[in-house]
Amino acid sequence: MNYSKLKFKIKRMENPITKQRLINTHNRIREYIHNTPVLKSEQINNLMGCDIVFKCENFQKVGAFKSRGAMNAVLSLHKDELIKGVCTHSSGNHAQALARAAKIAKIPAYIVMPINSSQVKINAVKNYGAEITFCESNLEARETTLNKIVEKTGATFIHPYNNWNIIAGQATATKELLEEYESLNYIIAPVGGGGLLSGTALSAFYFADKTKVIGAEPSEADDAYKSFENGKIIPSKNPNTIADGLLTSLGDKTFSIIQQYVDAIMLCDENSIIAAMKLVFERMKIVIEPSSAAALAIIMENKEYFKNKQVGIIISGGNVDLDILFNSLKK
Amino acid sequence: MNYSKLKFKIKRMENPITKQRLINTHNRIREYIHNTPVLKSEQINNLMGCDIVFKCENFQKVGAFKSRGAMNAVLSLHKDELIKGVCTHSSGNHAQALARAAKIAKIPAYIVMPINSSQVKINAVKNYGAEITFCESNLEARETTLNKIVEKTGATFIHPYNNWNIIAGQATATKELLEEYESLNYIIAPVGGGGLLSGTALSAFYFADKTKVIGAEPSEADDAYKSFENGKIIPSKNPNTIADGLLTSLGDKTFSIIQQYVDAIMLCDENSIIAAMKLVFERMKIVIEPSSAAALAIIMENKEYFKNKQVGIIISGGNVDLDILFNSLKK
Repeated sequence: MNYSKLKFKIKRMENPITKQRLINTHNRIREYIHNTPVLKSEQINNLMGCDIVFKCENFQKVGAFKSRGAMNAVLSLHKDELIKGVCTHSSGNHAQALARAAKIAKIPAYIVMPINSSQVKINAVKNYGAEITFCESNLEARETTLNKIVEKTGATFIHPYNNWNIIAGQATATKELLEEYESLNYIIAPVGGGGLLSGTALSAFYFADKTKVIGAEPSEADDAYKSFENGKIIPSKNPNTIADGLLTSLGDKTFSIIQQYVDAIMLCDENSIIAAMKLVFERMKIVIEPSSAAALAIIMENKEYFKNKQVGIIISGGNVDLDILFNSLKK
Repeated sequence: MNYSKLKFKIKRMENPITKQRLINTHNRIREYIHNTPVLKSEQINNLMGCDIVFKCENFQKVGAFKSRGAMNAVLSLHKDELIKGVCTHSSGNHAQALARAAKIAKIPAYIVMPINSSQVKINAVKNYGAEITFCESNLEARETTLNKIVEKTGATFIHPYNNWNIIAGQATATKELLEEYESLNYIIAPVGGGGLLSGTALSAFYFADKTKVIGAEPSEADDAYKSFENGKIIPSKNPNTIADGLLTSLGDKTFSIIQQYVDAIMLCDENSIIAAMKLVFERMKIVIEPSSAAALAIIMENKEYFKNKQVGIIISGGNVDLDILFNSLKK
C-alpha cells in the first residue's frame, strides 16, 4: 500500500481559517451554490466492503466544487477591489467558476487562457461575460500575460487554490456533507493544488469529532505524497495522469493546512482511476471526472484498510472530455 | 419534419386499464421501486427554447423503468401461479427486472438468454437468483426454449411489453411525473415494443387535463411510426439503431393503446440521438442510454414545434454499454 501517514504535525504557517470563518463563508455563498446531493450505491458498497457516501459536486454550478471558492473570493473583496474586478489564469473549471462569480457580483473578470484550450471551455467563460486573453500554453506565458492585465486593470488576482478565501469556500462542501453524515470514519478528497483537500480537512477538524481526512493522488502525479512525506513542497516533474485536474502541485498555503490537518495521502494507479470512473457511471448513472474517481480508486486498492468503515468521498466534478468517449460511438 | 399525427381514433381492442387500476398498480409496487427524481437543466432549456423536465428512470432499480412493470406483473399473480414462478426471454433490462421482482416475491424465475448476451447482464440476472437457460440468438430459438420451460415448470410467461400488467406498471412513471408537474403540454417517451409509451399515454389520459403524448422513434427502426400511420402493425425489417432498446416492434396490446391515446409518433436520426445523449452527459452529469436520448433528439430536430412549451421527457434508463465508451480511455 502506497500510504504516506503523517508522522509529525508541522505548523509551517499560521492558519487564518477559524471555525467561525467557515460558518460565515457558508452563509455568504449559500444562495449562489447548490447544496449538492449525497448519493449512495448499495452495489458499490457490496463490492467495496464498506459504507460509502458520495458528495456530488459534479451537480454543482459549472459542474465542479470550484464554484464555492470562486464565489467566496469574489464576495469577500473590498468595495474598491470590486470595482476593478478579478483575474486569473486557468484552462479549466476555475476560469468558469470565477467568470460566473464575477457575473453574479456584476464586476469585470479577466481570464488568461492557453491558446489550445477547448472551444467548449472558451465558450463557457465567454458566456459568463468574462474578457479572455489568450497566451502560449506554458506557465511562464500565463503569468506574464496575467501580470500585464493586473498592471493595466488593477484587477485582483484570484489564485485557483493557494488563497485563503478559495480554501474556505471549498471547505463548505465537506461542511454540508457532515451536516448530513456526522459520524464518518474517513473522508477522501482528490488532491491536485490542494484547495479542495485543505478545505475538506479544515471542515472535518471543526465540524466532526473523529473523521480522518485522506488525500487521493495518482501515482503519476505524486507531488502531494512526496511533499507530505518529506515535510517540504516537492513539485511534480512531468506529471502524466488521466486525472487532468490533479496535474498541479501544492502551494504553500494549501501545503501548510494539509500538513497540519490531513491524516494521510494515498496513491492510486491509472487503471484503478478508469475502473472507478466506469464503476460510478455504471452503477450510479452519474458522470464524474477522472479526478473524482481517484478517491474511489483508493478504496478499490485498499479494501482491507476501509473494511466496514463509513467513508465520505468528495466527487469533485463532472467535467469530462466527452469527445474522447463519444467519438467511439460515431459510425 | 417526420411526424405521424393521429388522424382517427381506432378502438382495436378493449382497453382494460382503468384509472383505478393504475392507482392500485402504483400502490402495489410503490415500496419496491424508486419514485425517481425529476431533473431540469437551465442550459438545455436555453439551447432547446422550451422548458423540459426529465423523469429519471435511469436512477430506477436495475437502471430502467422495466422494474415497474415486472414488479407489477409478479405481484399481480394468483396464489397458484406464484408457486410455479415466472419466465421470459430477454437479453436486457426486462430479464433483470423480472429476476429482481421474483426474488422479492420469493418465487422462481426462469430466464432464457441468447448465448451472446454480455457477461455483465448474465451476472446481474444470476445475482438475483434466477435460473438462466441459454439459446441461440434468434427469436425462434428463444420462443422454442421458453415454451419447453413453460411445459416443464408451469411458470407464467411475462412478456416484456405486450402484457396489461406490464403496461400498467410502466404507466406509474408518468403518474409520478404528473404528480410533480401537472400542466405539461407534452410528454415524450421512446417507443420500442411500446410498453413505456402506452403506459405513458394512459397516465396522461387519466391524470392530466391537456397533456399530449408523443412517441420518439429512430428513423432506422420506424415500425411504430409506420404502424401508426397505416393503422396496422408493420414490424421493423432489419432495424439498425444505436438505441438498442428500441429495436423491437409493437405488440397488439401496446399498439391498440398507442392508437387510442398517443398524439403523434416522431422520428429522429442517429446523429441526433448521439448528440442528445452527449448533451445530457455534459450538461446534466447523468448517464442515460441511447434509447432515452431519442426523446430529446425529437426536440433537437423540431425546436419550432416545441418552442416555449412545457415538455416532460421520460428518461427510460441508464444501461449503456460502457465498454465501448471506456475502451478509448485505456492507454
